[in-house]
Amino acid sequence: MSTGVYVIGAASTDFGPQPDIGVHDLAADAAWRAIESSGLDPDRIEIAFAGHAYQGPCLGQKALMKFGLTGLPIVNVENACASGATAVQGVINAIRAGQAEVGLALGAEKLTKPGGGFLPIVTDDLDSTMGRVMPAAFAMIAQRHMYRYGTTREQMARVAVKNRGNALRNPRCHLHEALTVAQVMDSPVIADPMTRYSCCPVSDGAAAVVLAGEEVARRVCDHPVEVAASVLVSGLRTPHGIVDDRSEMSARAAGLAYAQAGIKPADVDVCELHDPFTIAEIVHYEDLGFCAPGEGGAFVQSGRADIGGDVAVSPSGGLLAKGHPLGATGVAQIAELFWQLRGEAGGTQVPGARVGLAHTVGGGVSQLESGACAVHVLRA
Amino acid sequence: MSTGVYVIGAASTDFGPQPDIGVHDLAADAAWRAIESSGLDPDRIEIAFAGHAYQGPCLGQKALMKFGLTGLPIVNVENACASGATAVQGVINAIRAGQAEVGLALGAEKLTKPGGGFLPIVTDDLDSTMGRVMPAAFAMIAQRHMYRYGTTREQMARVAVKNRGNALRNPRCHLHEALTVAQVMDSPVIADPMTRYSCCPVSDGAAAVVLAGEEVARRVCDHPVEVAASVLVSGLRTPHGIVDDRSEMSARAAGLAYAQAGIKPADVDVCELHDPFTIAEIVHYEDLGFCAPGEGGAFVQSGRADIGGDVAVSPSGGLLAKGHPLGATGVAQIAELFWQLRGEAGGTQVPGARVGLAHTVGGGVSQLESGACAVHVLRA
Repeated sequence: MSTGVYVIGAASTDFGPQPDIGVHDLAADAAWRAIESSGLDPDRIEIAFAGHAYQGPCLGQKALMKFGLTGLPIVNVENACASGATAVQGVINAIRAGQAEVGLALGAEKLTKPGGGFLPIVTDDLDSTMGRVMPAAFAMIAQRHMYRYGTTREQMARVAVKNRGNALRNPRCHLHEALTVAQVMDSPVIADPMTRYSCCPVSDGAAAVVLAGEEVARRVCDHPVEVAASVLVSGLRTPHGIVDDRSEMSARAAGLAYAQAGIKPADVDVCELHDPFTIAEIVHYEDLGFCAPGEGGAFVQSGRADIGGDVAVSPSGGLLAKGHPLGATGVAQIAELFWQLRGEAGGTQVPGARVGLAHTVGGGVSQLESGACAVHVLRA
Repeated sequence: MSTGVYVIGAASTDFGPQPDIGVHDLAADAAWRAIESSGLDPDRIEIAFAGHAYQGPCLGQKALMKFGLTGLPIVNVENACASGATAVQGVINAIRAGQAEVGLALGAEKLTKPGGGFLPIVTDDLDSTMGRVMPAAFAMIAQRHMYRYGTTREQMARVAVKNRGNALRNPRCHLHEALTVAQVMDSPVIADPMTRYSCCPVSDGAAAVVLAGEEVARRVCDHPVEVAASVLVSGLRTPHGIVDDRSEMSARAAGLAYAQAGIKPADVDVCELHDPFTIAEIVHYEDLGFCAPGEGGAFVQSGRADIGGDVAVSPSGGLLAKGHPLGATGVAQIAELFWQLRGEAGGTQVPGARVGLAHTVGGGVSQLESGACAVHVLRA
């Protein structure tokens, strides 16, 4: 099974603080290079979706106008941290709907500011205004996972150690310093048990991919990568104040994606997973079916998520090391998988990777915001 | 020709200042009533697109969660003042792509604030920061139209008089006072020749429509309204500082929509037109082919845009009188046409209306922002 849509080009800027370049130029850089990598003339792009969360009106138009790509339908989409993945699905569906043969998915975000960047508090969310900001929410999830399953601080730290290690071989990453388990555990506490190195950094960046229907893809690209599944869901309402130790919407989106692609979790060779905090990666191993509920801590500790393990999880470095410029993240995941499945991932290459899964989550930790989860399955 | 997609339900809140209700409740009210009007159970909605420009992350999720509609794919879209129309197209394409049989397009915006609402200046736009805000931009367009074609202040005032007159019979409108040509011309100058009554008010509001594929639409709805065309384009780059007396992107979008629907301008019985300023409506008569370039002033003056004229333009009252809560506008236009084409438009009914056209423009008056234009053609 398949969507009938293929990735035929990809690019990503470096992630990290980029004080000297505006978000429209960052986005234009990624878009231009993605189109260039596809070998297509820019005016072959018939539709564009641009994902971002906090960059103001008409990001896509302003970015593409930088190099004269105008006139085409451009849709700006937002789904919190899943904005980029939502843009990717938008292009896939436009192609499936017959609206276009070739489209561009773009994602960009500039989060750093002079004096320090941060995510704005969502003022209409009671939980957020009462202090349940993202690190606090994930700290509670971690506490519950520790209590229920015996997950340890060492196991959580192993996630950061793994992803920082992978990032040493990916020049696009924000953070390039290796960490030890002790360093992660001994770094300043943000919200216990989440320490500074248990949290993703605040990054700027942009990424873009070019997608095409099968006929065009096979004609213009020597190695198109098939989108075997594209799933977007929102969360279910949970009673006020409940902290769960799983992500129901991730599990549901993954189940739909496996069915759409006709595969099972064990078929996934490489996964770009939404890991803004170490505990998120552990919970999501379980949601995505890579291990049973409660076994996520042991899964990472035993090396099964390493390059060379059962499934290489976030060989790019993930959000924890590559960085997390919100709108860019979901598009960059598709770009990283495109390179992996073409054998072009350089130092982070997963040997023999044939099936890749991208998992992106936006919002969804508060009872007031059901959020979004996107899962894409790509096939070499 | 047709998209194969039908409108089967619609609702709109009243437009105007709504100081006691938040945007998520406004949006939920419109969404709930649109679903109710379709006769479908809410859990038949398989996908939702929510359009807004300035309402923060995950508007769609927060609105639909108000009445427990969760789990489904929800995409938040932004295209400046065309955000709502972009949401409508998103649902149409999701249905065309086979992603859903039934979907909801929602648009909402709360612009009024204690002490007075206004649109934020786009700080990364050189023109805006130098003073070419919307009223100034349209004033320059008006000056050029007057210079080139002899369009008069009286003719421009006639647009406001017509739309205010239509609004007297639409209870959803923000402004319910009739105006004379002299009152429009003598109201305070905002940016010459645009006076206060030449400009749309600052409004709050929400609207929603339910869309379905043909099979479902014919089964559940006694009078579904066909979406004969759905077109979205962005603008072309124009040299810095050039003020044109037409909207190239409106003309292009309309041409594509006429071709998609297999109709010509003279076939349109009723048009909801994007009229944030009186001169915009005159320019867009010409862009949409209702009259020749330069003849827009005479067109309105001779009553050809009245209910009972060649084409009833904005019988709802339009942006000038109904109001312009950005994200809601494009969805409300579809809702108004749905009622017109079913003969349910009450006091604003256009007798015998069979073909309706909705025209929505976002951005696009600055050289830095190519903006968006959506044109939808509906058929009884």
